[in-house]
Amino acid sequence: MTRVEAINIKDGEKDTHRMMAEIGRRARQATPALASSSTETRNTALTAAANALRACEATLLEANEKDMKACQTQGLSGAMLDRLKLNPERVEGMAKGLEDIAALADPLGSVIAQWQQPNGLEISRVRVPLGVIGIIYESRPNVTADAGALCLKSGNAVILRGGSESFHSSRAIHACLIEGLKQAGLPEQAIQIVPTTDRAAVGAMLKDMADYIDVIIPRGGKNLIARVQTDARIPVMGHLEGLCHIYIDHASDIKMAKEIVVNAKMRRTGICGAVETILIDRAALSTHATPIIDALIAAGCEVRGGDDVQSINSKIVPATEADWTTEYLDAIVSVRAVDGVEGAIKHIETYGSNHTESIITDDPSTAEKFLNDLDSAIVMHNVSTQFADGGEFGMGAEIGIATGKLHARGPVGAEQLTSYKYVVRGSGQIRP
Amino acid sequence: MTRVEAINIKDGEKDTHRMMAEIGRRARQATPALASSSTETRNTALTAAANALRACEATLLEANEKDMKACQTQGLSGAMLDRLKLNPERVEGMAKGLEDIAALADPLGSVIAQWQQPNGLEISRVRVPLGVIGIIYESRPNVTADAGALCLKSGNAVILRGGSESFHSSRAIHACLIEGLKQAGLPEQAIQIVPTTDRAAVGAMLKDMADYIDVIIPRGGKNLIARVQTDARIPVMGHLEGLCHIYIDHASDIKMAKEIVVNAKMRRTGICGAVETILIDRAALSTHATPIIDALIAAGCEVRGGDDVQSINSKIVPATEADWTTEYLDAIVSVRAVDGVEGAIKHIETYGSNHTESIITDDPSTAEKFLNDLDSAIVMHNVSTQFADGGEFGMGAEIGIATGKLHARGPVGAEQLTSYKYVVRGSGQIRP
Repeated sequence: MTRVEAINIKDGEKDTHRMMAEIGRRARQATPALASSSTETRNTALTAAANALRACEATLLEANEKDMKACQTQGLSGAMLDRLKLNPERVEGMAKGLEDIAALADPLGSVIAQWQQPNGLEISRVRVPLGVIGIIYESRPNVTADAGALCLKSGNAVILRGGSESFHSSRAIHACLIEGLKQAGLPEQAIQIVPTTDRAAVGAMLKDMADYIDVIIPRGGKNLIARVQTDARIPVMGHLEGLCHIYIDHASDIKMAKEIVVNAKMRRTGICGAVETILIDRAALSTHATPIIDALIAAGCEVRGGDDVQSINSKIVPATEADWTTEYLDAIVSVRAVDGVEGAIKHIETYGSNHTESIITDDPSTAEKFLNDLDSAIVMHNVSTQFADGGEFGMGAEIGIATGKLHARGPVGAEQLTSYKYVVRGSGQIRP
Repeated sequence: MTRVEAINIKDGEKDTHRMMAEIGRRARQATPALASSSTETRNTALTAAANALRACEATLLEANEKDMKACQTQGLSGAMLDRLKLNPERVEGMAKGLEDIAALADPLGSVIAQWQQPNGLEISRVRVPLGVIGIIYESRPNVTADAGALCLKSGNAVILRGGSESFHSSRAIHACLIEGLKQAGLPEQAIQIVPTTDRAAVGAMLKDMADYIDVIIPRGGKNLIARVQTDARIPVMGHLEGLCHIYIDHASDIKMAKEIVVNAKMRRTGICGAVETILIDRAALSTHATPIIDALIAAGCEVRGGDDVQSINSKIVPATEADWTTEYLDAIVSVRAVDGVEGAIKHIETYGSNHTESIITDDPSTAEKFLNDLDSAIVMHNVSTQFADGGEFGMGAEIGIATGKLHARGPVGAEQLTSYKYVVRGSGQIRP
């Protein structure tokens, strides 16, 4: 990044745009070498970067300490500080993450489909990188390692733009990724990090870099996503919030329903697969509602209830309309009664974010209705929504869960960061 | 469309936007019925629409006559008028096209992948419609039938916005598609056509209908594509121009090279797979250039030559820099010498549109270099570029050739108009 930093950015926005264009040009320059690099070369870079992370633990923790101090001064919340925090275990986790990505199958070059036409043309559809990916993310520094590594694995150049809170941590992690690229003989421009916290850099990525960036992947809260969707002039692979629902049908096992609900809410409250609203079949109110709500409250969860469930436990807080559209990412859940699976589908279509929804029922036809009719990226039957994760799907590491319908849906791993091209082999065919 | 037409659009843009929002709402309403419709129902609608086209031939020709007269008054070019013209053969061609689409395999509901995780989760990736597709196209009236039918086949609602030149023809064709929907019991809102030539309708589709339209597919010339790329606030499946290249290697059969080049240019000059630039290996200038250029000129093609080839035939017009970036769509071709396959790749990377490129060579390693290194949607070896077509690929009808890298690349047929969702079946699994 030395040359980039040498550009004078004191003159503000104009120079930031100039610097971003330069970063874009470099990323584009790196794409042919990445596209034609061998599986071994890319994996060497990943394992070398993992070793660099381990070797630089002290430097990483020092950089992180700077970020933590600045954020404490600004009065960031405990949850935010926890996301930002690095410690030896988390550094080892990042290193291990890179090794796991190295161990994944190479998506590039694989022949997705192949056929011969009656005139002798041999047509194959071959996986190729997307090109240059722009990732705009918030404070978690490990995204720098994960996202950089997944883009490298899939042969893409990447421009990383992390949150200002993790500025020093992300740059220290980035230096380790560069070390990996160097050791593998890959261009350093393959993984670039925007060396400024100036918000104009995000504007440049979204609006002015269509020639350099093939797709933008935003990872963060509502405000970031909203800005990206409003401003982007280039394709965006959308990762909306995870307003996940579980519907408890009357024909369900109470114990299974209770265990799944408590797990889906409380195992980890801050991930996008955490359930936010529980819909209980009105026909199951007298049997299922009490044990489920009591279990949630006993597990330390605040329950916000609709009119039909408020009398079940004195600790239930009355829910307002806003609760049905709120991704709490916290130990809070909203609960309401619905008229069977049809009512559940209607509620989810009205308030959901098309991320992940699960039905708990023993009735196969009710389950099929739910699975077929809902238009979410992931629909589940008798499963905790916390399984909405690339690793749990057996797909390896992921950048996130895509909620749009274009290109990729659900977990976005290395394979989802690729495109394809058609290769047609002939023997002189001309079209009649 | 009766209710839409009842909206007063005399008050201009504001009412056009209101009307477009209403069209969007209706399209969205139609999506559940389409997504859950059976293969038979959708195919019934398609064959009924084909019959309606045949039955309404007189009405269609009458509507087309109105369009033709208006365009003759405006002094449109002969090529434009030919694209607009309907006659009994072309009506039959459209009807046959709908029947061909009905005969294609149904992309919906097919299980793309299925696996079981060690914890017993059964995960499947199932094909689903995209939702609502907006198609903005220029004057060819048959796009109304083709695009409407492909969207219906793939379970999508569609909003068609054709060029003003074909306004009456497109509406008459649309009425036949509606007849098909009615006969199959599908909602009429599944295929809507914008009932105004007001350009504000395009603005509304691109900027204000993100809640109603999942993807915009533009089909048309440079100006249309440029407007869509500048204004769109929703995903666009790009169909850029087809600035196709053929590279003639020194190690190639002269007769094959000559036949392919003449076919690729002259079979039909107005399609996106027509070649626009011929790159001749400098080492083949003395052997290949003369027979190829003479054959093109003999076939009635204007040849615009770079410095190195101008002396070959007195009819060669000197090429300017602009020729290397021009999609002629006419009996004109640019020709230049390049330094081997590396030079060809460099030229194509500099001037190409990532559509379709072909190499003519007998050397397998030279061919592989060309096929691997170029980043175009379709790369070919010893084949005429005019094969760049969904039908010729065995994929059935297509909306066009996508040149972007997101979602679909190359021919966009019914399958490319779908997305997928993950269905996860369990037995009470909670995440550890």
